[in-house]
Amino acid sequence: MQIFYKRLLLSCFACMCLLNGFLFSSKVQAQNKTTQATWIWYPGDFEVWLSNQMQNRRTERGTFFPPFWRMDSHYVLVEFHKEFNLTQPEEIELFTEGQYNVKLNGKMLSGYPKKLQLAAGRQKINIKVYAQDKVPAIYINGKTVKTDASWLATFEDKEWIDETGKASDASGTTYVNAGTWNFNSPNQKPSNFKLSTKPKYAIKTDVKGASRLIDFGQETFGFIKLHGLKGNGQLRIYYGESKEEALSPQKCETIDFVDVNLAKAQDSTLQLSKAFRYVQVETDAGVKLDSVSMLYEYLPVKDRGTFTSSDAELNKIWQVSKYTMELTTREFFIDGIKRDRWMWSGDAYQSYLMNYYLGFDEASVRRTILALRGKDPVTSHINTIMDYTFYWFLSIQDYYQYTGDKQFINLVYPKMKSLMDFCLQRRNQNGFMQGLSGDWIFIDWADGLSKQGEVSFEQLLLCRSLETIALCADLAADDKASAYYKNEAAQLKTKFFNSYWNADKQAIVHSRIEGKQTENVTRYANMFAIFFDYLNTQQKEGVKKNVLLNDKVQKIMTPYMRFYELEALCAMGEHDYVMKEMKNYWGGMLKLGATSFWEEYNPSKKDTEHYAMYGRDFGKSLCHSWGASPVYLLGKYYLGVKPLTAGYQQYLVEPHLGGLQWMQGTVPTPNGDISLYCSTSAIKIKADSGTGTLRLKSKIKPQAKGISVKQIGPNYYELSIPSNKEYTVKYKL
Amino acid sequence: MQIFYKRLLLSCFACMCLLNGFLFSSKVQAQNKTTQATWIWYPGDFEVWLSNQMQNRRTERGTFFPPFWRMDSHYVLVEFHKEFNLTQPEEIELFTEGQYNVKLNGKMLSGYPKKLQLAAGRQKINIKVYAQDKVPAIYINGKTVKTDASWLATFEDKEWIDETGKASDASGTTYVNAGTWNFNSPNQKPSNFKLSTKPKYAIKTDVKGASRLIDFGQETFGFIKLHGLKGNGQLRIYYGESKEEALSPQKCETIDFVDVNLAKAQDSTLQLSKAFRYVQVETDAGVKLDSVSMLYEYLPVKDRGTFTSSDAELNKIWQVSKYTMELTTREFFIDGIKRDRWMWSGDAYQSYLMNYYLGFDEASVRRTILALRGKDPVTSHINTIMDYTFYWFLSIQDYYQYTGDKQFINLVYPKMKSLMDFCLQRRNQNGFMQGLSGDWIFIDWADGLSKQGEVSFEQLLLCRSLETIALCADLAADDKASAYYKNEAAQLKTKFFNSYWNADKQAIVHSRIEGKQTENVTRYANMFAIFFDYLNTQQKEGVKKNVLLNDKVQKIMTPYMRFYELEALCAMGEHDYVMKEMKNYWGGMLKLGATSFWEEYNPSKKDTEHYAMYGRDFGKSLCHSWGASPVYLLGKYYLGVKPLTAGYQQYLVEPHLGGLQWMQGTVPTPNGDISLYCSTSAIKIKADSGTGTLRLKSKIKPQAKGISVKQIGPNYYELSIPSNKEYTVKYKL
Repeated sequence: MQIFYKRLLLSCFACMCLLNGFLFSSKVQAQNKTTQATWIWYPGDFEVWLSNQMQNRRTERGTFFPPFWRMDSHYVLVEFHKEFNLTQPEEIELFTEGQYNVKLNGKMLSGYPKKLQLAAGRQKINIKVYAQDKVPAIYINGKTVKTDASWLATFEDKEWIDETGKASDASGTTYVNAGTWNFNSPNQKPSNFKLSTKPKYAIKTDVKGASRLIDFGQETFGFIKLHGLKGNGQLRIYYGESKEEALSPQKCETIDFVDVNLAKAQDSTLQLSKAFRYVQVETDAGVKLDSVSMLYEYLPVKDRGTFTSSDAELNKIWQVSKYTMELTTREFFIDGIKRDRWMWSGDAYQSYLMNYYLGFDEASVRRTILALRGKDPVTSHINTIMDYTFYWFLSIQDYYQYTGDKQFINLVYPKMKSLMDFCLQRRNQNGFMQGLSGDWIFIDWADGLSKQGEVSFEQLLLCRSLETIALCADLAADDKASAYYKNEAAQLKTKFFNSYWNADKQAIVHSRIEGKQTENVTRYANMFAIFFDYLNTQQKEGVKKNVLLNDKVQKIMTPYMRFYELEALCAMGEHDYVMKEMKNYWGGMLKLGATSFWEEYNPSKKDTEHYAMYGRDFGKSLCHSWGASPVYLLGKYYLGVKPLTAGYQQYLVEPHLGGLQWMQGTVPTPNGDISLYCSTSAIKIKADSGTGTLRLKSKIKPQAKGISVKQIGPNYYELSIPSNKEYTVKYKL
Repeated sequence: MQIFYKRLLLSCFACMCLLNGFLFSSKVQAQNKTTQATWIWYPGDFEVWLSNQMQNRRTERGTFFPPFWRMDSHYVLVEFHKEFNLTQPEEIELFTEGQYNVKLNGKMLSGYPKKLQLAAGRQKINIKVYAQDKVPAIYINGKTVKTDASWLATFEDKEWIDETGKASDASGTTYVNAGTWNFNSPNQKPSNFKLSTKPKYAIKTDVKGASRLIDFGQETFGFIKLHGLKGNGQLRIYYGESKEEALSPQKCETIDFVDVNLAKAQDSTLQLSKAFRYVQVETDAGVKLDSVSMLYEYLPVKDRGTFTSSDAELNKIWQVSKYTMELTTREFFIDGIKRDRWMWSGDAYQSYLMNYYLGFDEASVRRTILALRGKDPVTSHINTIMDYTFYWFLSIQDYYQYTGDKQFINLVYPKMKSLMDFCLQRRNQNGFMQGLSGDWIFIDWADGLSKQGEVSFEQLLLCRSLETIALCADLAADDKASAYYKNEAAQLKTKFFNSYWNADKQAIVHSRIEGKQTENVTRYANMFAIFFDYLNTQQKEGVKKNVLLNDKVQKIMTPYMRFYELEALCAMGEHDYVMKEMKNYWGGMLKLGATSFWEEYNPSKKDTEHYAMYGRDFGKSLCHSWGASPVYLLGKYYLGVKPLTAGYQQYLVEPHLGGLQWMQGTVPTPNGDISLYCSTSAIKIKADSGTGTLRLKSKIKPQAKGISVKQIGPNYYELSIPSNKEYTVKYKL
């Protein structure tokens, strides 16, 4: 643990030079708690405020294109406080975002103090801040008194006084731990937050008259910079993820028109960042331009997860997946970088999972979960989509399992309850979720997919959501609610199988309409039921044969649902098959020149057909977070690393080469990394913390110095791996 | 009606010169609907935003002093739309507050259009606006297409598109009529709203060395202006509602310290308006100052209600009450102008009632009701005070009765429901409201008043609130809810009398503790039960004798509760007694030099004792809205004018001279005025609209040309008064 911190501090200093003082690793926050002051706010408020900014930056052909769901706001008036017991007097400095007042030991101080002298002994500091346009926030720094997540905050302190001047006891006030990120100096005001940028240059420019086509070599995101701009007239920029898009002024999805009126040549950077690989820049006769470059805009996330293997194509798939995640991991985890640039709960759910095998950036997961949920009252499903509400629940169980962060569960649990209330109140007379007015049943982009009646997929996700909230109720010690949710989950599960399992088909059917099973079988509910572990062995085999490996069942065309389809197959041990599918599907995109992975890929389409979607020639996103799932599959099912208890205190390593000769990689955990090398005859493993179980098939009894080996089945063994030392295991696949 | 509009238009033009183009009469709004474009927003949002600004302007001795309850925010993303059927093509101009896009007949227009060409025929305009720091708002003006309250708005349009590019039907979206006030030109942006100002000058200045005491002659509110300010050093301003306060630098409630660094003399106006009659200005040796004046800051409200009589002291009481209301009717109806400058629901409730007999400014009532309520979810009582939640309900019944504005009821009804849910869920096992953690049971400022257990007063207000919401459920055609609320109200009323009526005492007792009646009898529940008409004749007489006219029952010391005490006595025909009380109590304040009425007045106190409250020497507000109740009592119970049906379609005039020789006055209604002159032998009456019933006691049969007279009791008569003509009635008191 100590070593890990040291390592992080070093990288922190490195970042501070490079990245304007911002560091985006969640680990630093834990460290802040004891040693570093940081800006604090009402938890969730900065996230809501920042997500409003980000999600209202979408444009479509120059027109503002905001979301269609409710956007919330921060609390404009917030009280922060903490008690200290000082051994010595100390001076503290105070910085705020907003108008404020200060109470010291219950006594209001005059004016707007910027420094405070604290005496030794018990000291209570209350600060109340008002801001409408930004999030009320404070930063206090003294020798021992510092703002951090241990401060308490409320949006209603209820501190009235009666006619005698006596204050109320404010006992009805709910205080919560303050929200933080990594704004660790007075000048790093939360309201000034910007992503980092660095210059990038074109690899090729083709000039044709007044038009030039600039190729940046790969999918990218940032601000176009116009060098040596001069003259009078208009300059038009047509962005393209493909060359064809940039060369299509009438149909490209994003554009910028710049009115130029410059007597002297100067460099000019566009205000709004965009996604592209190519840009076509067209100038009026009166406008001159030397060259075009860009400022690449990104969230600095520490490189942690790695993967290489004996298969060069697979390595490229992993690298392009990683880059796809880099591009879509921004203020929040977003869907695609060209078009929506919004948070979508179902998309983000996958980003979280991939992130656990890449940067392990806990803070970005928390930000996205909080911003997606917004504030009460609940007036619609998250993103208006029923399934996306359920993914939001599921994401919290994963977050806890991977990070072990119980404090976040306590923060988010009340928000889970009100959202679950909303869901349960919308069940129909059969106790099933069915689309009501304003509910979008999404599931997947798939031709002719029925959303009518009681869709089995939605009930399955509700059931898992109920199990998740019951777990969180346990963590929050809300026993009554836990019992209630567990009972609801159990009842629903029973009813689900009674209602949707078709013994003849040996599969879950797609839906019920007017209380009767339809004949339709789709992959969705079937594959989720597998990795939810809801099926018995016989049912699993039935589903595998009749659904997953049955070409007559409608095929999945999005990487989004391929994620789950391949996960289900991995969960059933079909690693060799999935390896082939991965190489076919993602390798297929690479063969078409993809430099990031797509929103949808249908191998049967040709040429520019690949770029079309939503009835628009270039409607498809060519960099979509859900395209990056190989990162997750390779980490969890091939390197085979996953937490068994919250926060990787205990974890499993069950490597599967899936036909590879060797693979090696690193999986990040909250307290260090797990490194693994695996060939057909040897495994090297080292973990910085936690207790690991290495589980493997071997034709010989595995051997490792200092580790006992337990046989758990025919040619099947388990080894218990201590932390902080590299172990080599000899075996035979 | 026609005449009324004309009159109003004239005054409108007058105001537009005087008041920077703002006119604050609610009537103009109705007119806008057909002829004038106005800025629109999501209803309630401007009110919430403006109230945040206003309520965060309080300072105490130079320190920021914000409210202790939750402050909400506007929706940052709002969609507005309306369909038109145009006989001719027309061009419209579009102005917005915020980033926006425009859809015409379902098709998104490119960029940010400022003008639109509409073809003849069916035209649907959708505009979506995002703004974080201010309220998303739009203003459209064309020949026939104009923004007004008939436009619809939503904060979640739920307009998604599926993979084929097909839009959802958005049928789950709740649209409401847009909010408006009187921002009737493109430049009058809601975010620029400011109250009006005009210069006022001191009547006296006493200079003593570096200090000067300036007397503005009466209580006032505004920005201090420093003329000929020059030099280097500090200038200190001590504000005082009394001379003693201004002369007490250590204890005055509000101060301003100005750092001066001016080589050349100039005039300088302070940034924050304050309440005062006196200011003491103290300067450092290096600072020079010619003189001090002020900018009086006010909401322009039309003068409508009037009252004069044969009693000069009473006339002064009415005038000073009116001025007290002028000072406290601002962005919203506030409590007092020196200290809180906040909206308090119980205080505002009385302001509404007084306003119906003064300016009849419906818009200010609506603004205050909306801002007090804020947004869901409900997390505490309004202002944290249980009784103040109930007054909020009661205010809506009054608003409907006086204005007949059903559209507002429809807007506010869902907010009533969620607030009532909050209340009903907080009842104890006996079905009574009892203070829980964080609930403030206020009732009144009164020494030793018990708030323990189940306080009868709160149950009584809940019962009336249930009756109110049932009425609104009827207006909103929510039959199921209406039946539910009516049943809850009836059950509570029965239980109330079973639990709190003491047959021996012939009075309602103050409270129950642990299920048992206390011995304590206070005035509060008893007097409210009278004008709620909850008592039978025998009970009324008991209450009158044993409580209201019983000096042994703790006396009321605030004009706030005197309001209801005197109203109850008026309701029981004790006009002569109340007249004497009014002259004693409010006349008492005048004799002490009051130029506006106070937060509390205890005749037994002496000299500067009157200024103290909350344990502070000058803690008391000397201009408090609840001090102005004679305006209401004289209008409703002496002129005797009140609506019998919603919006004064039918009304009652039952004059009571209460010992006066004559009185005359005007009572405003939604559609004109009711003017009345009354002596002991003649009554003159004229109403601009509605059907009136003149009810009076007379020793002779009253005579009036063209009006038939009906006897309703011994020496008791009723006359039906048509509108639009002055009638003279001869009678004999």
